[in-house]
This record gives sequence, structure tokens and C-alpha cells, in this order.
Amino acid sequence: MSNIRLTYFDFDGGRGEPIRLALSIAGIEFEDRRITFKDFPSLLSTFPLGCIPILEMDGETWTQCNALLRYFGKKAGLYPEDPWQAYLCDEILDIMEDVSDAIGKTFGLEGEALKQGREAVAAGMFSKALSLLDKRLQAAGGEYFADKQLSIADLKVFEWARMLGAGFLDHVPTDLVQQVAPAINEHMQRIADEPGVKAYYEKRA
Amino acid sequence: MSNIRLTYFDFDGGRGEPIRLALSIAGIEFEDRRITFKDFPSLLSTFPLGCIPILEMDGETWTQCNALLRYFGKKAGLYPEDPWQAYLCDEILDIMEDVSDAIGKTFGLEGEALKQGREAVAAGMFSKALSLLDKRLQAAGGEYFADKQLSIADLKVFEWARMLGAGFLDHVPTDLVQQVAPAINEHMQRIADEPGVKAYYEKRA
Repeated sequence: MSNIRLTYFDFDGGRGEPIRLALSIAGIEFEDRRITFKDFPSLLSTFPLGCIPILEMDGETWTQCNALLRYFGKKAGLYPEDPWQAYLCDEILDIMEDVSDAIGKTFGLEGEALKQGREAVAAGMFSKALSLLDKRLQAAGGEYFADKQLSIADLKVFEWARMLGAGFLDHVPTDLVQQVAPAINEHMQRIADEPGVKAYYEKRA
Repeated sequence: MSNIRLTYFDFDGGRGEPIRLALSIAGIEFEDRRITFKDFPSLLSTFPLGCIPILEMDGETWTQCNALLRYFGKKAGLYPEDPWQAYLCDEILDIMEDVSDAIGKTFGLEGEALKQGREAVAAGMFSKALSLLDKRLQAAGGEYFADKQLSIADLKVFEWARMLGAGFLDHVPTDLVQQVAPAINEHMQRIADEPGVKAYYEKRA
């Protein structure tokens, strides 16, 4: 594969970051095109559905972060072959999209409205999702979400938990993961030490 | 497999219907639990993420319509094994979620606000998605979205196009698919004639 360009916002998180990570673990060369929030509106018409990430490959523009993550996750050996284990992985990916949609609705809000919106998401969808993630992780053995090995589900949850802990989202408590789902907090710390993840962030540093 | 119960709203469309269809094509017995919009709020606390469809199996409640659709789609022989063909199928599934999210934001609106909201979705996300679907279908050979055979992507798009054509959504033109993406309109008519689809709706009639 060659001539791959991934376009996403210029921060190490969100819907694009797990794809960057999977591409890196798969050893696939790609152009990591990063755009600013400020430039986004002027580029909007070049995104087929008006959102990013998008991936350009073989002269075409491809959409949908989880579909892309699954494709490159397979290349990286990070996706289960067994249909039920694949479901366990897929459920997590789509739970994280629910989470992204919920917080997405607060972007653009300001002042007290932003505070109230973010607090509602933290107490609502974020906490519901964390409880379910916690339950799924325990049921899967406590270490990985599927197949007893690293998968794209671990990468996706890791990126989100990492972002929350770093205080990326104003008005969302940085210890929310620790408070609601301690097992997910430990999971995050463990995934950070996975060789492929560590190598990626050492290169980024 | 046994003791499967799928819970969704009581209409033949939306996020639950492609799963019902895949279960039926796979020949898997399930309890088709249908709830009314009116009863939804009182049942909310029994849904892990506050939304449906959910699927109960082996004493546990499972979420995420596309993850469930993919799992049962594999059982029904409706999911590509080749990773790139699987991506083509997955991209379509997630495009349809963007579409559902967009229209979801108009539920609860009334009067002129509903009219304006729906018209904006029809001219915006629905039309963008239809153009992309049209392009993908042509690129895939014109008949099916992936692997040159019926897949869950076809079922998902079929259900949506069918619902639009039936006038299920007030203020969305019933000929939108025909106007924006004639190939998707023809696709809908063809998928309706697929033996598994036909058999399911003959049983429902």
C-alpha cells in the first residue's frame, strides 16, 4: 500500500488517533495530514460527508473512522477472527462513537451552557458508557476487551480515557474514569505500555 | 443459539429492522419484542446506554445495532471475508448511522421547526449520503455494495430507502432517493426481490 493520506484535526486524540495508531502498528506508511479547527470550515466541501477523519487512497476518498480502523486493524493483527470476539470488539468501537456523538453536541456551546452541557454528558452518556465498558472488560478477563489480546477496541478506549485524564474536555472531571470505572483506568495505563503504542508515542514526542 | 430477544420500536424500519432481517435470513429463532414510542421512556432504565435496539442472549444485554448486524450477518452469509470488501460494507453501515443521527435530532421538534429541521436534513446529510452511496454502488459494479453479492450493507440501505419512499418521515420528499440517487432507488427495488427479503416480508404481511 502506498499513497495513503489521513486527514484529521491536529491533536493526538479523537476519532482519528486510533487509526494513526493502527497504521503505525501495522507498519503502513501514511501522510499524517493535520488540520486546525480554524481551517476546518474552509475545507468542509472537500469532505464527502462534512466530517473527518477521511482517508485518501488509490485516488479515492474514504470515510467512517471505525470502518477504517477495522480495515487497518486487520492489517495490524488487531482484530479478532472469531465472529463473537469480533462482535465484542465492534460493540466497544460503536459505544465509543455514541460517546463522541454525545460530547460533539457540546462543541460550540460557551460559558454556563457549555458547563451544564459537559456536566450532563459526564454524568449521562460518559458514565453509562464507562459502566458498560467496565463490565465488558471484566467479563472478557479484565485485561483486553476481546480475544484475550490487544485489539482496536483497546486502542479506541485507551485514546478516549487518555484524553479525559489529560483534561482535554473542559468541565469533565479528569478523574471521571478513575471514579466510575477503575478497571478502565488501569486498562489505560496498561495499554500505554504495549510495545506498539509506546513506540508510536516515543516517535511523536 | 436460542433464547434470543431483540427489543426495538414497533415499526418495520430504523436501526432494528436490518437485524430482524439478518436473523430471519440466517434462520435464527428470536423473540421480536416491539415496544411503542409511548412506552419507551418507562423502559429507558433497562437499556444500558438509554437506546435501542438491544439484544438479550445468554443472560446478558448486548448493544450497538451495526455490531449486532455484523455478527448475525456473518451467520447469514451476508458479510464479506476479504478485508477490503468488508471495509466497503462497513463504510456503508456507518454512513447509515450518520444518517440516523442526523434525522434523530429532528425527533421531538414540532410545527415549523420540524419542517425546517427535516428539510435541512433532506438537503444536507441525506443528500450527501445518497450521493456517496450512489458513487459507491456504481464503483462496486452497480448491483451490490460489496463483494458482488448481497450483504448487510444492502439490507441497511434498502430499509432506509424503503422508509423514505413510504413517507415515514414527514417533510422529507418521498421521491428524494429517486431524485438524488436513481441507482439507489433501483437497488431498493432489486433488494426487495431477493429471496430472503421477500420471504421475510411475506411472513410479516
